[in-house]
Amino acid sequence: MPGEHARIMVSGADRSGIVAAVSRVLNEQGGNITALDQHSTDAEGGRFFQRAEFHLPELSERRAALEAALEHTLRPLNMTWRLAEAGSRARVAILASRADHCLMDLLWREQRGELATETTMVISNHTDLAAQVGNFGVPFHHVPVTRETKAEAEAAQLELLRGQVDLVVLARYMQILSGNFLQAVGVPVINIHHSFLPAFMGAGPYQRAKERGVKLIGATAHYVTEDLDEGPIIEQDVERVTHAYSATDLARTGADIERRVLARAVAWHAEDRVFVDGNRTVVFA
Amino acid sequence: MPGEHARIMVSGADRSGIVAAVSRVLNEQGGNITALDQHSTDAEGGRFFQRAEFHLPELSERRAALEAALEHTLRPLNMTWRLAEAGSRARVAILASRADHCLMDLLWREQRGELATETTMVISNHTDLAAQVGNFGVPFHHVPVTRETKAEAEAAQLELLRGQVDLVVLARYMQILSGNFLQAVGVPVINIHHSFLPAFMGAGPYQRAKERGVKLIGATAHYVTEDLDEGPIIEQDVERVTHAYSATDLARTGADIERRVLARAVAWHAEDRVFVDGNRTVVFA
Amino acid sequence: MPGEHARIMVSGADRSGIVAAVSRVLNEQGGNITALDQHSTDAEGGRFFQRAEFHLPELSERRAALEAALEHTLRPLNMTWRLAEAGSRARVAILASRADHCLMDLLWREQRGELATETTMVISNHTDLAAQVGNFGVPFHHVPVTRETKAEAEAAQLELLRGQVDLVVLARYMQILSGNFLQAVGVPVINIHHSFLPAFMGAGPYQRAKERGVKLIGATAHYVTEDLDEGPIIEQDVERVTHAYSATDLARTGADIERRVLARAVAWHAEDRVFVDGNRTVVFA
Amino acid sequence: MPGEHARIMVSGADRSGIVAAVSRVLNEQGGNITALDQHSTDAEGGRFFQRAEFHLPELSERRAALEAALEHTLRPLNMTWRLAEAGSRARVAILASRADHCLMDLLWREQRGELATETTMVISNHTDLAAQVGNFGVPFHHVPVTRETKAEAEAAQLELLRGQVDLVVLARYMQILSGNFLQAVGVPVINIHHSFLPAFMGAGPYQRAKERGVKLIGATAHYVTEDLDEGPIIEQDVERVTHAYSATDLARTGADIERRVLARAVAWHAEDRVFVDGNRTVVFA
Repeated sequence: MPGEHARIMVSGADRSGIVAAVSRVLNEQGGNITALDQHSTDAEGGRFFQRAEFHLPELSERRAALEAALEHTLRPLNMTWRLAEAGSRARVAILASRADHCLMDLLWREQRGELATETTMVISNHTDLAAQVGNFGVPFHHVPVTRETKAEAEAAQLELLRGQVDLVVLARYMQILSGNFLQAVGVPVINIHHSFLPAFMGAGPYQRAKERGVKLIGATAHYVTEDLDEGPIIEQDVERVTHAYSATDLARTGADIERRVLARAVAWHAEDRVFVDGNRTVVFA
Repeated sequence: MPGEHARIMVSGADRSGIVAAVSRVLNEQGGNITALDQHSTDAEGGRFFQRAEFHLPELSERRAALEAALEHTLRPLNMTWRLAEAGSRARVAILASRADHCLMDLLWREQRGELATETTMVISNHTDLAAQVGNFGVPFHHVPVTRETKAEAEAAQLELLRGQVDLVVLARYMQILSGNFLQAVGVPVINIHHSFLPAFMGAGPYQRAKERGVKLIGATAHYVTEDLDEGPIIEQDVERVTHAYSATDLARTGADIERRVLARAVAWHAEDRVFVDGNRTVVFA
Repeated sequence: MPGEHARIMVSGADRSGIVAAVSRVLNEQGGNITALDQHSTDAEGGRFFQRAEFHLPELSERRAALEAALEHTLRPLNMTWRLAEAGSRARVAILASRADHCLMDLLWREQRGELATETTMVISNHTDLAAQVGNFGVPFHHVPVTRETKAEAEAAQLELLRGQVDLVVLARYMQILSGNFLQAVGVPVINIHHSFLPAFMGAGPYQRAKERGVKLIGATAHYVTEDLDEGPIIEQDVERVTHAYSATDLARTGADIERRVLARAVAWHAEDRVFVDGNRTVVFA
Repeated sequence: MPGEHARIMVSGADRSGIVAAVSRVLNEQGGNITALDQHSTDAEGGRFFQRAEFHLPELSERRAALEAALEHTLRPLNMTWRLAEAGSRARVAILASRADHCLMDLLWREQRGELATETTMVISNHTDLAAQVGNFGVPFHHVPVTRETKAEAEAAQLELLRGQVDLVVLARYMQILSGNFLQAVGVPVINIHHSFLPAFMGAGPYQRAKERGVKLIGATAHYVTEDLDEGPIIEQDVERVTHAYSATDLARTGADIERRVLARAVAWHAEDRVFVDGNRTVVFA
């Protein structure tokens, strides 16, 4: 039963005994670990990352005791930890502009039950996608953005988001979010960049890929930081192209890569498979 | 230092507390886990598989005590376990016939230090590859095989292998090993099959792939069992082909896939990343 | 301008001079070849396949003369040929059951302008997908099928299809079409098979892939013939899976492969890039 | 028979009638086109590229007449053209330093008959690879290079190369060739760059890939121009990596990609499948 399955994520400065401590507590509380991934960045002095799935009958009754025991054990070790039930879903806001491919793919995968997400709203600076979003029964908010109104627009977005979401996804949202927004939003923000970073950073990557004559084009899903195109990379993929591809062909191929790379990144994030390690990620996928 | 790094592999019928037990022992003995993969096939009543890398200063002095503690802990749990130092190398015999691509690739990768193997001998039913093997300083044994002499040939092979190897690799060896041989050899045997199993089982897969007009061809590395083409699959890969590929083109493309699939399978096996689970494998790669 | 671009497809028993004959006629009629693919299956006695894109100002006025000249030239050579304007779209009927992924992806790509198709109807033996299809403004016909009513159902389908479509696409349609239907329908039928043929032919391929422990799963788009799972393969693709994938994970991964393989096959067919060569295809993609 | 098969490559400013003109001449001279690829970069005012394979009995006797007819036809159209017999092999010099993987793979593929090349010499600024090259029976020349002696070293290299080769391959050659050398050498030079250009141009790409946390690493084969890392790209490929890859793992994975990307580029060049189009390539592969 879903209610009997959960996972625990632990990270912090590496030291001996963390795996032992966590697994001892789980065992004492009646849990059975069914999948575990652990990675230390160095044999000594590195950072520690662990994700474990476990089975624990009557989890809801025992959860408080389990959490108390974990806190009692892991606080002295200076570890950051978090528990999530297997059936839990991340509340998501998707920001989009006019392009529909990433947005539609996320909504469709969620509807199919492929994503551990619950999209609570779509915010767009255009109205083009309102009907398509409506077909999925998801609230659509139009927040126009111009150079002059950017501050007010971001304030309006934050007002919509406050307390409502665990994750913001930029699904080909064509506005740059300010540092103020990123600090205020208080949840991770995932972006899909339409190139294989760090190649073709910035605007117009498909045109520039065409001009450079590359034989593969790609896309990159990453957490957003104030340094544009520089946040921790979650997932990347590429596809083969040839001299015969027009700019339109490249954009279409790129759209396919974008939607699948973003869907993977969101799926992994929602299942707590992604850990941020400075400007990089550890992904237990 | 290599002498301070090791790994432990544990498997058996799943039950609560195994991760906790192993990590407690490692911790008590001064070890720090730096990478851990664990998989149970079911939440209840499944099979348990774990591989953990750890760092333990003065490992050589402490190894006996560690092993005693592990045995004391894991025997009552009915777990199979094994310890290997990070620098250890599997002693390998490669069996080949006339095709050189898989054999050369393994010898060359070992020479570069890419494989945790030490090829102690090559046995072939032909002499074609003697000089190429000699260039690597590896002993080459010619054991001819005919339908009539198969039993004697296998006896001669077993005589060469006895106590000398931890693994036998069939690198496009074109003879079928008997059930008697497989039982007598006492170590795992890895084969590379020149198709994407279970498509095109048996002989002539490239010709049959051409006739069927498939758009991808592949190769499969698997442990050998008495059921030909049916042993646990370790690794598979494919490559795209077109209508324009001749039978020769298919065989060349196939050779590339074969050598890289076999090299991956041998590398993972030698690093104790592959666990046999009935007729399947669990690969922590 | 689109109206000035067209393509010509030529096929037949190979003989000298066909490329010269076709290109001479195009040149005499004012056309400029901008892309040409040609393949003969053998240097002598093979079959000939050619697809050429060309630019011809005032194509609509000159088309009749061009076609007369082509017929005059190619009929004596026993060649089959066909002309299509670059902007032309194949009229398509999609047959589906309950699974939506392939159907939705085709409708969505067509809406985006990625496919040279015009889906004129969706026919399903269930009503589950009626609303989703309706969102795209495409007529949805419910034709239930039971073992007893199969003949009448096929008759009803044929009645709907007659003269209305250039292509039938089976988008995870879970009924087997009779030989009578295939003969009567008079247009090509493309199916998506949820495995990498010829592995796992027949039913339940994901479960069987799980049981066999394969490391890649795939999908195959093929023209439908009376021999189930045996028609000419248009496109195949695979994705990597691991021991950790549940049957549900395999089915989800498989759905992703299925929709992109089918979309590619339909796109290529609609652009006249696929030629049938006995039980195989020549694909100029 | 090989002596009856040949190919013709044609390129130049696009204009109507070139395909017709070439195929007419081939037909008149008794040739039968068995494979043809043609690409124009634009419908009007673009550049034209064509490669055609044909079968022509008694080619050696008829070659002079065929060439005369082609010249008579194509010179007035300002086309560049070249004829090559199917069995012809490009004479190649490989320049290497200490890394052996690309060099060995090329020599090994040539020995197997996979490449239409004949490596006439290996030139290295180190002696490490002399024995390995000697095993293949290929002359090895040691030309040391220091900052002070670079001009003399290049003169010595040019002396070795003059009139002896059709292609120079830089197989992880760690010296930058001067503009003077590139002008004097008079044949194409192919380089393998150990990253997915234009990401990580310059030195240390694997270390930088590790620092940036990319999820794929790649390699690029390109023609060498005076702008380092900027010549026309022939082929690229990538492989998936994870957070668990050490710098050594990345370099090993990279070596695999490098050798297969370079091998493909050399194979395609030797079969006249690559056309330079400004700073890009047209590859009929």
